[in-house]
Amino acid sequence: MIRIAIFGFGAVGRGVAEVLLRKGDRLRRIFGDFKVVAVTDSKGGLVDDDGVDLAEAIEIKRKRKRLPEGITTLDVIENVEFDVCVEVTVTNIDDGEPGLTHIRECLKRGIDVVTSNKGPLVVAYRDLSKLAERNGARLMFEATVGGAMPLIKLVRNDLAGNEIYAIRGILNGTCNYILSRMEKERLSYDQILAEAKELGIAEADPSYDVEGIDAAAKLVIIANALMGMDVRFEDVERVGITKITPEAFEVAMEKGYTIRLIAEVDKVEGVLRVSPRLVPIQHPLAIGGTLNAAQIKTDLAGDVVVVGKGAGSKETASAIVSDLVELFRCRS
Amino acid sequence: MIRIAIFGFGAVGRGVAEVLLRKGDRLRRIFGDFKVVAVTDSKGGLVDDDGVDLAEAIEIKRKRKRLPEGITTLDVIENVEFDVCVEVTVTNIDDGEPGLTHIRECLKRGIDVVTSNKGPLVVAYRDLSKLAERNGARLMFEATVGGAMPLIKLVRNDLAGNEIYAIRGILNGTCNYILSRMEKERLSYDQILAEAKELGIAEADPSYDVEGIDAAAKLVIIANALMGMDVRFEDVERVGITKITPEAFEVAMEKGYTIRLIAEVDKVEGVLRVSPRLVPIQHPLAIGGTLNAAQIKTDLAGDVVVVGKGAGSKETASAIVSDLVELFRCRS
Repeated sequence: MIRIAIFGFGAVGRGVAEVLLRKGDRLRRIFGDFKVVAVTDSKGGLVDDDGVDLAEAIEIKRKRKRLPEGITTLDVIENVEFDVCVEVTVTNIDDGEPGLTHIRECLKRGIDVVTSNKGPLVVAYRDLSKLAERNGARLMFEATVGGAMPLIKLVRNDLAGNEIYAIRGILNGTCNYILSRMEKERLSYDQILAEAKELGIAEADPSYDVEGIDAAAKLVIIANALMGMDVRFEDVERVGITKITPEAFEVAMEKGYTIRLIAEVDKVEGVLRVSPRLVPIQHPLAIGGTLNAAQIKTDLAGDVVVVGKGAGSKETASAIVSDLVELFRCRS
Repeated sequence: MIRIAIFGFGAVGRGVAEVLLRKGDRLRRIFGDFKVVAVTDSKGGLVDDDGVDLAEAIEIKRKRKRLPEGITTLDVIENVEFDVCVEVTVTNIDDGEPGLTHIRECLKRGIDVVTSNKGPLVVAYRDLSKLAERNGARLMFEATVGGAMPLIKLVRNDLAGNEIYAIRGILNGTCNYILSRMEKERLSYDQILAEAKELGIAEADPSYDVEGIDAAAKLVIIANALMGMDVRFEDVERVGITKITPEAFEVAMEKGYTIRLIAEVDKVEGVLRVSPRLVPIQHPLAIGGTLNAAQIKTDLAGDVVVVGKGAGSKETASAIVSDLVELFRCRS
């Protein structure tokens, strides 16, 4: 019986709980029996060695906005027995907390970790992966990059044996939405941004997205985890999309190009950069809407491209479940 | 020590041997030590319990077009000890032979199989997968569909937990080359085909490709292996590309569409079909050249698209190596 603890019960945590609940039978057939023995948020949590009632947890969170007080995530790590932690607290790329401490404490105890939290990986990927290795635990993080766009395991598994020369991608759906609407409608950046805010595609303070911070954080994870590099967030050359004008699109389109915010790490060219780039209109990275895409340049397989939904609680849950499957398939 | 036997030493078999040779150290770090104890072609083979000299095998094949006579693949299966068979003989979708017998005899003995050979899977997927299960062996076949385009393990692993509603794809690079050149140049099908033959992109008898037979064979594997169906080659509704005219492209392009040979299996709509379809110009499946692409429709992850090189010995070797990695990672 696999015992799961979920740390973080926002949209992603609830999405995971819903999938475990709704698809329990299917998942049990894939990786064996499991139960969720703890669920926590920043205020409290629910613990039950026999399995937390996930439907009830979701309902409590929906009604009261918080789980019952009186228990902390660190209490759970210290006092509850579990095999895998699903760490889905909010990303903080300054110091990685609180996720970083959660992940460290789990890995130290040999507990496998599946996370959607970019912060700890941006701040301390190398330390965490060494810690995992030393303690015979595994750290899985498909959901940190590109939501349901499969990239991490695709490179590690499906392209195993390949030298990875470069990865270029569209890693931020908000920017891509804004740019692809500017392409189609030639409205100003500010007009489209205002609409994106209304639609909930952009945050009230959109700087994390439009300044390329989110894409750069993901690029750091890609460089360190998939290309054997050891780079920090500060190493990324970064230009956002705020200065792009409808006229720039006009000129680009005349030549058969569009403009996209491209995150790229290229070992051959020595590039680690997030910036608006010209992309040929029919290029696989010239995608529209809030999609994410990545182009992986390899020695054997040539170029491989993946496109998928970069965000959403269901989509992120899909990535987390795929990590759980990978963990448990290899265990049994 | 993992003992590998390679059955079939044409372009794919030699490609695998070259990768095992050239990337031996890297692969040993990923999945442990290995040696190739047998290599066979339709005429003979080389066997060495201490490891066949792959460079020598490649050289012999290059010079004499055949391996030394005196040993058959069935001899090897009966008399040589090995853990995994790389079955890369030529595809025959009529009765699956000789690959079908090779694969059956290996699985019966509990030997894992990695194959690029569509024939046995088109003819007998369900039987083979049951045989594998009964004998505790695994049957891996990433290389049967789409060369280096990752699809099989991507759906099984990265999208594990998802309901797969439909898969639509461009699964034949020759057809896609012809159609994308007709799109660009508005020349007749016959003109482009003649050029494709000269370039070695189309066979002297191109019917296997242009009649959609190859794509339909791959579609059968996709339906049976990834969507839990039980369909035969004859069940595929199939129309080739031979009747498409430059005028058809003219009309399509005016409305913002192009024409591609699309293989599609859709559980919801009850479709199992290979046929020329209109595809919007900016759609991820509107790819050019000899590329392959697939769009996977799921419940959680939404739509995921992958694009990659559909053929080539290095590319196919990449897929085979990724299957070896999957086999051995889970073993150790």
